[in-house]
Amino acid sequence: MSRYPLAELTNLPPDIRDKILEIQEKSGFIPNVFLALARRPAEWRAFFAYHDALMLREGSSLTKGEREMIVTTTSSANHCLYCVVAHGALLRIYEKKPLVADQVATNYRKADISERQRAMLDFAMKVCLHSEQVNDADFEALHAHGFDDEDIWDIGAITAFFGLSNRVANFSGMQPNAEFYLLGRVPKPAKS
Amino acid sequence: MSRYPLAELTNLPPDIRDKILEIQEKSGFIPNVFLALARRPAEWRAFFAYHDALMLREGSSLTKGEREMIVTTTSSANHCLYCVVAHGALLRIYEKKPLVADQVATNYRKADISERQRAMLDFAMKVCLHSEQVNDADFEALHAHGFDDEDIWDIGAITAFFGLSNRVANFSGMQPNAEFYLLGRVPKPAKS
Amino acid sequence: MSRYPLAELTNLPPDIRDKILEIQEKSGFIPNVFLALARRPAEWRAFFAYHDALMLREGSSLTKGEREMIVTTTSSANHCLYCVVAHGALLRIYEKKPLVADQVATNYRKADISERQRAMLDFAMKVCLHSEQVNDADFEALHAHGFDDEDIWDIGAITAFFGLSNRVANFSGMQPNAEFYLLGRVPKPAKS
Amino acid sequence: MSRYPLAELTNLPPDIRDKILEIQEKSGFIPNVFLALARRPAEWRAFFAYHDALMLREGSSLTKGEREMIVTTTSSANHCLYCVVAHGALLRIYEKKPLVADQVATNYRKADISERQRAMLDFAMKVCLHSEQVNDADFEALHAHGFDDEDIWDIGAITAFFGLSNRVANFSGMQPNAEFYLLGRVPKPAKS
Amino acid sequence: MSRYPLAELTNLPPDIRDKILEIQEKSGFIPNVFLALARRPAEWRAFFAYHDALMLREGSSLTKGEREMIVTTTSSANHCLYCVVAHGALLRIYEKKPLVADQVATNYRKADISERQRAMLDFAMKVCLHSEQVNDADFEALHAHGFDDEDIWDIGAITAFFGLSNRVANFSGMQPNAEFYLLGRVPKPAKS
Amino acid sequence: MSRYPLAELTNLPPDIRDKILEIQEKSGFIPNVFLALARRPAEWRAFFAYHDALMLREGSSLTKGEREMIVTTTSSANHCLYCVVAHGALLRIYEKKPLVADQVATNYRKADISERQRAMLDFAMKVCLHSEQVNDADFEALHAHGFDDEDIWDIGAITAFFGLSNRVANFSGMQPNAEFYLLGRVPKPAKS
Repeated sequence: MSRYPLAELTNLPPDIRDKILEIQEKSGFIPNVFLALARRPAEWRAFFAYHDALMLREGSSLTKGEREMIVTTTSSANHCLYCVVAHGALLRIYEKKPLVADQVATNYRKADISERQRAMLDFAMKVCLHSEQVNDADFEALHAHGFDDEDIWDIGAITAFFGLSNRVANFSGMQPNAEFYLLGRVPKPAKS
Repeated sequence: MSRYPLAELTNLPPDIRDKILEIQEKSGFIPNVFLALARRPAEWRAFFAYHDALMLREGSSLTKGEREMIVTTTSSANHCLYCVVAHGALLRIYEKKPLVADQVATNYRKADISERQRAMLDFAMKVCLHSEQVNDADFEALHAHGFDDEDIWDIGAITAFFGLSNRVANFSGMQPNAEFYLLGRVPKPAKS
Repeated sequence: MSRYPLAELTNLPPDIRDKILEIQEKSGFIPNVFLALARRPAEWRAFFAYHDALMLREGSSLTKGEREMIVTTTSSANHCLYCVVAHGALLRIYEKKPLVADQVATNYRKADISERQRAMLDFAMKVCLHSEQVNDADFEALHAHGFDDEDIWDIGAITAFFGLSNRVANFSGMQPNAEFYLLGRVPKPAKS
Repeated sequence: MSRYPLAELTNLPPDIRDKILEIQEKSGFIPNVFLALARRPAEWRAFFAYHDALMLREGSSLTKGEREMIVTTTSSANHCLYCVVAHGALLRIYEKKPLVADQVATNYRKADISERQRAMLDFAMKVCLHSEQVNDADFEALHAHGFDDEDIWDIGAITAFFGLSNRVANFSGMQPNAEFYLLGRVPKPAKS
Repeated sequence: MSRYPLAELTNLPPDIRDKILEIQEKSGFIPNVFLALARRPAEWRAFFAYHDALMLREGSSLTKGEREMIVTTTSSANHCLYCVVAHGALLRIYEKKPLVADQVATNYRKADISERQRAMLDFAMKVCLHSEQVNDADFEALHAHGFDDEDIWDIGAITAFFGLSNRVANFSGMQPNAEFYLLGRVPKPAKS
Repeated sequence: MSRYPLAELTNLPPDIRDKILEIQEKSGFIPNVFLALARRPAEWRAFFAYHDALMLREGSSLTKGEREMIVTTTSSANHCLYCVVAHGALLRIYEKKPLVADQVATNYRKADISERQRAMLDFAMKVCLHSEQVNDADFEALHAHGFDDEDIWDIGAITAFFGLSNRVANFSGMQPNAEFYLLGRVPKPAKS
């Protein structure tokens, strides 16, 4: 289905290969995005640097689960299969809510989330679909839920970054790994 | 108008400050995007690394003017004032066509460009607005104009990257420098 | 979340209660739609009679899995959480494909389905979103894939019926049972 | 124009034939929907049972005219010729307002109806076009006009049911009987 | 309902009053558009000069009925009650088809008109809704039905002119005279 | 690019030729719209009579610059290259603001204009895109900014008239003169 071949690990620059092996070690598999983008090392490095700057940023008042919630919701609006499935898995895991990813992907307005989170997603969806209409009232609505301007930057920039990711995945035919579909849906077996 | 203050050069990390001073040296002014994003150095570095990987890539069959044409056209669809004005200026300069930026920004279908460029923009606009509908026929249409799959990646990825840029500029209220509006519209005075 | 209380089994007319108990026996739980609609017995009876006439019709060349594929795809376009989750589960089970429901719900154009099924969903989506534009060319495209006019009626009528169901679920705030989310995602344990 | 032949009365199951003859007796002609759907008796029975459950329900605070007003307005949004013409006729007759059907079909916001009816149609149109966005404020707006939750169910369910009807009529090419176009436009001659 | 008062005949400039009296003589009533626009005599004169240049142009291959068909169809897309009702009446009268106005207003694709007329309306609707997308293929499609470039100008300019008319009627709250609703629906009584 | 030939001055009726020569005298060139429409003298006369009635009307509280602002903004929404470029030039000149035309053409919400002007453009855009939804609240919002009902008529009618102009320019392929692109962008040299 993918329109571009996945990169072979052995052919990659060492810094990229090492990072990918580290991910594989941690996750148990290599998410396709790492191999799909690696055919262009300079873009790969910028993409993941940007990703980490937003999704791993310390000091943000958004939890990791909330960031994945933004990704899952807006990626569904962009009809990006890769991101809905892969980031939906992360959302379930971080939030420990096995149902929430399907809920926000279908209709975040009816999802089992807090009012604060719904306001966060209202803004993310506006940036995703009609960013030219963002206005002061949108900022005030978020301030009323306790978000400050740095949080708003996070919400907007995460939405914008995954708008990039969604479009690349869509035109290139990127497919999510089968492993993602089930992650976070069933409780991990207790360690014995 | 901007919702976030521009960074002060003196407070920036040296690598960022040096790059900005280099730009200022070359352009005669500092485009606002450099100061608007610098408040978050990690994002700044990733953003410009991504930008350069796409816009300065050697070996692409897209001219620099064509890449700016993609940016100007899709940024207008996203109603991003910063990118339409700043990249419209670059488009005029690279293509040496003082009218083309206003043409593609208003309606690329009527612009004074080649059929090949129009096909390039048809694809860029589909990635911009309906990327989930991209299909094999779109690739075939571009192949028929001599674009190969690497060129198509360039068109799609440039569109996707500026989709990110447009959204950040829109929610943060980034304004283009006044200098950009006139660049490339009047012939440079001959050197004496 | 539901805006209308679910009916109590004990208060229902015997024919409705018996049918619901039969479902519970078979499924292990009572899907919420049965209790959500039962507050209006005449509508309940008509709804399920219509449902069964379409979804259980013998002699159709559409498999049960394909009918659920139509439901899942068009219900996602209508942003109906109940139907995407409940009928996505049935789709996974009937087709024995644990990934297909998430695929068609996000972007049926990229799903792992046959060309014939994609043509079926193209028509279903047109009936769902722009039924006034259905024309002879749409019928010819389906004939070319071996669908006859009775099959086309099935595709169109299933789409239309769930368009009703989606709207009722959406305005009334109907929630899918938690059980549905996981059904068909993991292989049933072999019977010992 | 119809893509499927109308059923012949003589070939129909007795219960359906009797009902149709009764309608013919009362109306002076057989509305095409009865013969168009009769080719599938089980769907016919469910369709008219559902129709009657909603449109003839006793105890509703919506008048018959108001229910037809919902049908005419939303069917126009769905561009369904059959329902606009046939139910527009019933609307004129029940409301004794020969102009109102053309008004609500073109733009209900400017129709000569009460504020309460306009609020009813605002909700119907939202269920028709964007049911996933229905929220508590919509219910409050209707409560303020004296509608209770059962009335809201009526408005929503009638809209949803005719959304089904509109789509079936559209894909199958159902045509309204010529008689409907003029009904209710001219005063009945006084009986002598 | 109208937001601006209708002009009083006695206060109007003589050329306008005379023209209106002539219309009244001929039609039996004064269509509201004549009094609604007369508050601004210069605009009134230009409006009706433009109207007559297009709708009464001699030498056009479009019949008067076809011109009214364009008006009725596109005015319905613009949800303009005045033009749908008033020009729908003229359409019925000129074409001697009492059903055709309601058909094209609801869905011209299913109306009882010729293939040539449907092609004419396809173009009119494109000019009405997406004029920036008009391209050479649209002209070729019309040429194939025997329309020449002057006919295409007529179709496009009539659509454009009533796009103006629809917007003025909509923002000013112009209402059609009750007489229009019934015109052309019933055969004129034979003169004795 | 134009699909219809421009008229030759020598072949035109004297009144039209004289008016055009007068424009040429004043502007230094003949704007293409005068020659593009002159092939149909009756339409030409009505078009410019209407134009002058609205754009030169004395007693309006809208400045000439504000009227051109309405034209530039709504013509951009209609993707009309001729009007964006030609009226953008007039806007820059009348307002003595070399940047404002590009701003309102891309996103009037972020343009450097007054709150009153933004309210004016909100209404113009509603008339341009969704005139059927204009309601009393829109009038109240304008009254709050000091616009009276005559001003509102001006805003609405100018928008409506250029909606006509945009559509004619789009379907006929009208091109702006190259001179317009630069007008008003650079200060006039001081007279010596």
